[in-house]
Amino acid sequence: MGTSVTEELKARIRAEGQYLGDGILKIDGILNHQMDPKLIQAMGQEIARRFQEARPTRILTAEVSGIAPALMAALALDVPIVYARKHKPLTMYGPIFLETAPSPTKGGEVNLMVAAEYLPAGERILIVDDFLASGRTLFALARMAQEARCTLVGIAVIVEKAFESGRQKLMEKYGVPVESLVVITNMDEQRIEFADDPPRTVEV
Amino acid sequence: MGTSVTEELKARIRAEGQYLGDGILKIDGILNHQMDPKLIQAMGQEIARRFQEARPTRILTAEVSGIAPALMAALALDVPIVYARKHKPLTMYGPIFLETAPSPTKGGEVNLMVAAEYLPAGERILIVDDFLASGRTLFALARMAQEARCTLVGIAVIVEKAFESGRQKLMEKYGVPVESLVVITNMDEQRIEFADDPPRTVEV
Repeated sequence: MGTSVTEELKARIRAEGQYLGDGILKIDGILNHQMDPKLIQAMGQEIARRFQEARPTRILTAEVSGIAPALMAALALDVPIVYARKHKPLTMYGPIFLETAPSPTKGGEVNLMVAAEYLPAGERILIVDDFLASGRTLFALARMAQEARCTLVGIAVIVEKAFESGRQKLMEKYGVPVESLVVITNMDEQRIEFADDPPRTVEV
Repeated sequence: MGTSVTEELKARIRAEGQYLGDGILKIDGILNHQMDPKLIQAMGQEIARRFQEARPTRILTAEVSGIAPALMAALALDVPIVYARKHKPLTMYGPIFLETAPSPTKGGEVNLMVAAEYLPAGERILIVDDFLASGRTLFALARMAQEARCTLVGIAVIVEKAFESGRQKLMEKYGVPVESLVVITNMDEQRIEFADDPPRTVEV
């Protein structure tokens, strides 16, 4: 791709990313704990550029790490955003959609919950999240969009770990474009390798 | 005040806010679950306008609901943001700052954790969060900033519940400006009352 945000992200991940073993990449200083808001904005603008023709009417993400890039993509597309909660606050009552996904960075299963009122039928949903690995969080969000009788128009992530094959499974199941700003093909304690040209997907 | 974002927020809260009893206001459709990104951006810009002269170098907030307005304030101020985690992910290791605060919407106590590397000594910290009620989350974040040997330059929230007196306690303890975009003076099942003119604070 060679877009500037992709190149900046690759440079930052090469400089600061830490491989912690078991397929876990720490980029807490870039996306998951500390953030440079201009870089997050550039991520959101790039996601918007790639999906504006799909005409999403709503962005769906999951707390916590999906919120920032999804908010910036929503700003660039001028559509509302809703984020699935993992812990039910007192303010969440009435009918909800609930899906369950395994958590690679927390262990165990996590619930993903969206109040039905914020996922009305007929919306054109773009799912945005921080990572695509096995795709299990994204599958849970996609199931939720279907359950709500919405149309899934695409899936966008910041960092894809290509070696976990989540993209193929998502595309086979849902037949929507899956876009990643950077694609990691291999990583170990010594280095992080990126796809020279992150694959652009086509409708299947 | 009468700024446009304040007026828009008051109108939205009057129209959509729900009082759930026990001092809990549900504005999940505005700030805590579903968001209009342009409104969140306007909130961030207003926070930036009020605090630019305090020259913050870093914004500190808490997951989950603080992230969106804090990110937009950070974008407008062009400073990094760090959000305290409530649940420790695998990627968080090494020294951390940990403070504990009671959670009004979840019950019990919550941990607030920031990796020490993302709260370096000497930073000028602006704390941003969604609600100011008793101020206990904000106190925990302020303690963390002090523990990190940073300078607290101010506290900004979107919605203040004036009847819980958090503002007075925070100002007495830390002597920094506390700013709220809207101030609720009273609420019950029938109506939500706002301060006609949200109080501007001065250095104490």
